[in-house]
Amino acid sequence: MRDVCVIGLGLIGGSLLRAAATAGRTVWGATDSAVDAGKARADGYDVSTDLPGALRRAAEHEAIVVLAVPLTAVGDVLREVGEHAPGCLLTDVTSVKAPVLDSVRELAPGCRYVGGHPMTGTAKSGWAAGSSTLFAGSVWVVCAEEDTDLAAWAEVTTLALDTGAQVVPLGSSAHDETVARISHLPHLLAAVLAAVGAYGGPLAATLAAGSFGDGTRVAGTRPDLVRAMAEGNRAALLPVLDEALGKLGAARGSLASTGGLAATIQAGYNGVRSLAEQRSAARTGVRVNLAAPDARDGLLALGERGGRITAIDGDTAIGEVT
Amino acid sequence: MRDVCVIGLGLIGGSLLRAAATAGRTVWGATDSAVDAGKARADGYDVSTDLPGALRRAAEHEAIVVLAVPLTAVGDVLREVGEHAPGCLLTDVTSVKAPVLDSVRELAPGCRYVGGHPMTGTAKSGWAAGSSTLFAGSVWVVCAEEDTDLAAWAEVTTLALDTGAQVVPLGSSAHDETVARISHLPHLLAAVLAAVGAYGGPLAATLAAGSFGDGTRVAGTRPDLVRAMAEGNRAALLPVLDEALGKLGAARGSLASTGGLAATIQAGYNGVRSLAEQRSAARTGVRVNLAAPDARDGLLALGERGGRITAIDGDTAIGEVT
Repeated sequence: MRDVCVIGLGLIGGSLLRAAATAGRTVWGATDSAVDAGKARADGYDVSTDLPGALRRAAEHEAIVVLAVPLTAVGDVLREVGEHAPGCLLTDVTSVKAPVLDSVRELAPGCRYVGGHPMTGTAKSGWAAGSSTLFAGSVWVVCAEEDTDLAAWAEVTTLALDTGAQVVPLGSSAHDETVARISHLPHLLAAVLAAVGAYGGPLAATLAAGSFGDGTRVAGTRPDLVRAMAEGNRAALLPVLDEALGKLGAARGSLASTGGLAATIQAGYNGVRSLAEQRSAARTGVRVNLAAPDARDGLLALGERGGRITAIDGDTAIGEVT
Repeated sequence: MRDVCVIGLGLIGGSLLRAAATAGRTVWGATDSAVDAGKARADGYDVSTDLPGALRRAAEHEAIVVLAVPLTAVGDVLREVGEHAPGCLLTDVTSVKAPVLDSVRELAPGCRYVGGHPMTGTAKSGWAAGSSTLFAGSVWVVCAEEDTDLAAWAEVTTLALDTGAQVVPLGSSAHDETVARISHLPHLLAAVLAAVGAYGGPLAATLAAGSFGDGTRVAGTRPDLVRAMAEGNRAALLPVLDEALGKLGAARGSLASTGGLAATIQAGYNGVRSLAEQRSAARTGVRVNLAAPDARDGLLALGERGGRITAIDGDTAIGEVT
């Protein structure tokens, strides 16, 4: 098993450091937060605030380097990676993938980069919020681009599997389009609903119950984190936002003209049902030979149908799909 | 204590029948569902499918008649009320108030009508889903219009208090505007989000997690129920829908032009915080003398600030407001 060097030790990075150690890997990390570094050391982990030192050690030991810093800090850290570990096996855990891929190609072009995105989290942040079991049972996207080295892809996938996650192989654009739909749009709609609700003042606060509480829950997330992921995914988010505006505008037009909302409400109901059926549908086993010439196509075909890789056995990726 | 006659024995009507009985009142009911009537009788309640009979008994015993039928059935039942209990003390539990008030004035003009809306519920429906404790700790709007008889208002409020709810006194238009904001708009946004999400297919189903699940939860509600309340509140919902469209369009414009979403996301965050602060703010006691000439103004001033009535003592309504 490769060693793991985690840069950034907040909720995700800190949890990954713990989970990789639990899986038996040699792990170390760096963070620019002296507070988090102190807490991590007090918990027995090999953590410092010396980023160049951690990267040079990664280069020396051929470790996997994991960028677990906020999207807005990725560029600065990539410059350090390009300087101190220029040929490393590199992955990340940020919530958009195409912009990070572009930055790696510009700032650390010698790295073998495989983008990643663990689809989990809590409302809390910082080292203290992390846990070695954060990823257990969750889904982790590991990107396979045209030029991805599948041996590197398998190494990053194995790290994700080690944490208890299942891996969805995707191209960065398919990832970004889908997270715009199921994560960034929900955050924007929650923000709009919270603002409209707040305009109703104390009376709205007294009457608001289930539907408003559910619909605004994520609007309480730290604004800088939401901005980073939504603004960072601008290209994919714009067309999805237009879909939502179109559907909401159609509802408005129908309510104003005929008084009816059947199409809007039925489409929403059908959507919820259809997604629930897809989640509970029976799955069949799939094996992808990573040494075959069409391996990448096989992985992407699986991922784009919502399938997951559950194990890597030598050159074989073992998964399931509905 | 007045007797109570409940028309319609689904989740809300059935729960109210049980709660009023638990409070020591004589209760009976009617439903057009032979299934619900059979279940209610098996549970020991005096329930039939004979609507005229139940209403005539209410007229004879000067009972409070509670309309607990879906909004789309209110007109038909009001015609029966106008025929068989034309001067009764009448309330309802439907989720819009101005349209019901208009219908009462047209179809049962001799009734002393006081509109009501218990702000609670579950995803389930029918007699079997009900419970005598459904209203405990919840908020129940009881309407005070220009021409509302405050003795009748106090009777309906006492019934709501008997179930363990607290009462918010409002005019029907203030009620309808606020529920458009905190209930009907959330349902429409959830439907739009679910439809946009479903367009992402099985991959969206696999990747969707917290924010999408929260944001679409109420889109799984029975479409006929959502349509009835949202379409029934058309006049109040349209301007609120326009507020949401305006804010979402502004986000779209900002993302497309400058790439920034700070205003949208910060406004949502501020909204959630402000509503939470209003809910947890310290409350002071208020007493309204229902026999005073300005009693109605006192009640509405309290309700419009999100205050609640917690008890009725003779001619005094006792409440609290932040």
